[in-house]
Amino acid sequence: MNAADSRLLTLRKLELIRAELPSIDWIVDDARVKRLSQDYFWFSPVLKRLFDDKQADAVARPRDEDEIRQVVGACARHGVPLTVRGGGTGNYAQSTPLNGGLILDLSRFNKLLWVRNGVGRAQAGIRLSDFDQQSRPDGWELRCLPSTFRMATLGGLFGGGFGGVGSITYGPLGAPGNVLAIKAMTVEAEPRIVELSGPEALLLHHGYGTNGIVLELEVALAPAHPWLENIVVFEDFDRALDCAQALAQAPGIIKKSVTFLAAPIPGYMEALKDFLPEGCHALMVIVAEFNEAAMKQIVGEFGGRITYRQDTEQVQATRRTLVEYAWNHTTMHALKVDRGLTYIQCSFQPGRNLEQVRQLEKLLGGEVLMHVEFLRLRDGTLTCNGLPIIRYTTDERLNEIMQIYRDHGVGIANPHVYVVEDGKQGQINPAVVMKKLAFDPHGLLNPGKLRGWEIRDQIIAAQAQA
Amino acid sequence: MNAADSRLLTLRKLELIRAELPSIDWIVDDARVKRLSQDYFWFSPVLKRLFDDKQADAVARPRDEDEIRQVVGACARHGVPLTVRGGGTGNYAQSTPLNGGLILDLSRFNKLLWVRNGVGRAQAGIRLSDFDQQSRPDGWELRCLPSTFRMATLGGLFGGGFGGVGSITYGPLGAPGNVLAIKAMTVEAEPRIVELSGPEALLLHHGYGTNGIVLELEVALAPAHPWLENIVVFEDFDRALDCAQALAQAPGIIKKSVTFLAAPIPGYMEALKDFLPEGCHALMVIVAEFNEAAMKQIVGEFGGRITYRQDTEQVQATRRTLVEYAWNHTTMHALKVDRGLTYIQCSFQPGRNLEQVRQLEKLLGGEVLMHVEFLRLRDGTLTCNGLPIIRYTTDERLNEIMQIYRDHGVGIANPHVYVVEDGKQGQINPAVVMKKLAFDPHGLLNPGKLRGWEIRDQIIAAQAQA
Repeated sequence: MNAADSRLLTLRKLELIRAELPSIDWIVDDARVKRLSQDYFWFSPVLKRLFDDKQADAVARPRDEDEIRQVVGACARHGVPLTVRGGGTGNYAQSTPLNGGLILDLSRFNKLLWVRNGVGRAQAGIRLSDFDQQSRPDGWELRCLPSTFRMATLGGLFGGGFGGVGSITYGPLGAPGNVLAIKAMTVEAEPRIVELSGPEALLLHHGYGTNGIVLELEVALAPAHPWLENIVVFEDFDRALDCAQALAQAPGIIKKSVTFLAAPIPGYMEALKDFLPEGCHALMVIVAEFNEAAMKQIVGEFGGRITYRQDTEQVQATRRTLVEYAWNHTTMHALKVDRGLTYIQCSFQPGRNLEQVRQLEKLLGGEVLMHVEFLRLRDGTLTCNGLPIIRYTTDERLNEIMQIYRDHGVGIANPHVYVVEDGKQGQINPAVVMKKLAFDPHGLLNPGKLRGWEIRDQIIAAQAQA
Repeated sequence: MNAADSRLLTLRKLELIRAELPSIDWIVDDARVKRLSQDYFWFSPVLKRLFDDKQADAVARPRDEDEIRQVVGACARHGVPLTVRGGGTGNYAQSTPLNGGLILDLSRFNKLLWVRNGVGRAQAGIRLSDFDQQSRPDGWELRCLPSTFRMATLGGLFGGGFGGVGSITYGPLGAPGNVLAIKAMTVEAEPRIVELSGPEALLLHHGYGTNGIVLELEVALAPAHPWLENIVVFEDFDRALDCAQALAQAPGIIKKSVTFLAAPIPGYMEALKDFLPEGCHALMVIVAEFNEAAMKQIVGEFGGRITYRQDTEQVQATRRTLVEYAWNHTTMHALKVDRGLTYIQCSFQPGRNLEQVRQLEKLLGGEVLMHVEFLRLRDGTLTCNGLPIIRYTTDERLNEIMQIYRDHGVGIANPHVYVVEDGKQGQINPAVVMKKLAFDPHGLLNPGKLRGWEIRDQIIAAQAQA
């Protein structure tokens, strides 16, 4: 069967399913379906080329577990591919189907179930901002937020994200102790519901929804401090970088993020231009309000100048937060000014990270603009991850730049690929594939995104021998 | 004037002061004065020899700021030496006067003033346990506790302590952001009250009350999680040590302490003997209850066996906490069994700490029993501090052991000396001396404990030139 025939068949099946389940909220209008099929993959010229014409055939927006069960069961019976979507804020086409099918949009499955003693549980489709708004009165908030927290969902962060603001304290979302448990659904004619905890739950993390449908997440929370947002500017690259690391490490200072933006990146942040003198290197620093004095002490030691200071009330009143200028929002603000830019993602080596940042700045400065975010790794060591902005010329040069980074001992999480394993140095995790086998035996979830699925027979054989 | 005459003069002056201030709570009974003059210096055979016969001539126990002002003003006018005391739980004779005088016992000056938004302020004499008991209903507790928290005061911890349980997250008490401000009183005929914040406040930290009387402390707090106390046992030294570091580092696991006790130390913990199999190496691990699964995951990876598990309610009900088996309480339990033991304090080098622990265990095992506590340093790097227990033979051998540690690159904070600077590699901090000049111009506070005071003229001259 060729692609066109296959597509036609899927459309017919979907018509049958819609007829079977009339009470579900269906979207079939082509423009809306297209919009709901896409995410921010256009940050990458490579992915933009590959995915610009990709879309699903319909979208279902179930409101409760029973509706999800009905839709998933029908897709399993009819053999319709199924791609789960949260807020659509990913960058690697995580929720864009390669070959049509149904988008299962979970954004209406969004209740906060409970918060107590530093733990919260919610339905996967809850927006991160809504979670925090509801949990903060109890004194708790999410540990990690991507810069897209206003739109992004908890299930989306788990399924396609890494961590973000907050990882400076708690490490990536995948570090033991951050995600405590999940409830997931199998893709079968009669879908089953399974509760997973600890490392088993994490087998569904960052798999782009290829190996299970996550319904609920139980996560450890962070105390919701009143936060103070600051911009600190420097004339000197090295002093700015050293100050960032000193702030990031200081154990007595409770912090949410430390972002380092080398010149000329601050120039792209047009909404903040009053606070970013021409040619400056800037830090964006979010600390607990009560630690302001300690932060200023360290900033003073490195000769930094604070040009922007907003306390929690001001942030709430203005709805402007520096979180929306950090991580990949930095890239977005730069892209708004210059569509010829793109970026890479990299992980500097603990202990050598500042040295590596300096070497690469010397080598590639001008073409690769330095942006790093400080964080703890899974094992707790402090380092920084980079999201350097690149003046894009060709795919070859982009790959060359990534190779130069690798040659300097810097890890690359390539954001110009769409296969799960390709963003992870090509490594196939057999346990992830075995989970897909259990949760999605017919291979209907987000097909084509998990390379390990193609060699499942090999993996099964190896497991049988072990 | 010889020592006896000087002592007699002090006694006469104290009689005058008592007559001037009859409403103050005075203690002059010799046995009670002696008890209130001493601390736990007897952990050290060296200090025991030096301080066993030392005591004050009287004790005053003021109840409010005005009473403190009256006593301090009178001492300044009459030239009576003044030694401040909290709970008397120090180990280096911090509050034992070398040459008599008055003990200013602040244990009745003990109100919690306020707690809000992660910050608390209290009078110096508040017991750490009372602070926590009052602040916990608001969801907050102290960041760092010594194992003596039931008796020790906040002012005492600041004046003579380091940190302790909690330093695994927040570093030592002296890391920027932990102590936000203090209120201190000068020793003058008309005592003045001064508020200090940030690094200036820290100039009075760990000075044994030699350079100012701290009245109030404003400290950043930690969220009061429900804590879970665990003992994990191992047959293998290396696996136990590796597991301890993995737990200590794990960024997603909220923790209060990770203690490593090599065999045969667990054998000294008689009250816990049911949970400590003969010859085991043991970890004591206190984590947030909701992170139990993540802790067990890591413990499992290293083959540890959990033999003891008490949740917050059980700890409250039994009033038994592992905090009172960690840090210097470990030493105390061992001393209860064998008075021929003593200890040293040391700081292993981040990145090389496990290697150093192993080397020294190989070299000195049997004579020096390994006990380490994991913590973050002032700059946030993770390492462990040691409080190894030593089978004491002679002072010479004790010094030799410390030298062997130093030769292996391990820092020693010698607990067998009583001069502030001698516990800090002999380094004189001119800023500390200048603070004493401002707060205690007549040198009446805890005389003989601050070496820098002896060369104050040199320091003043250098400051004038700078």
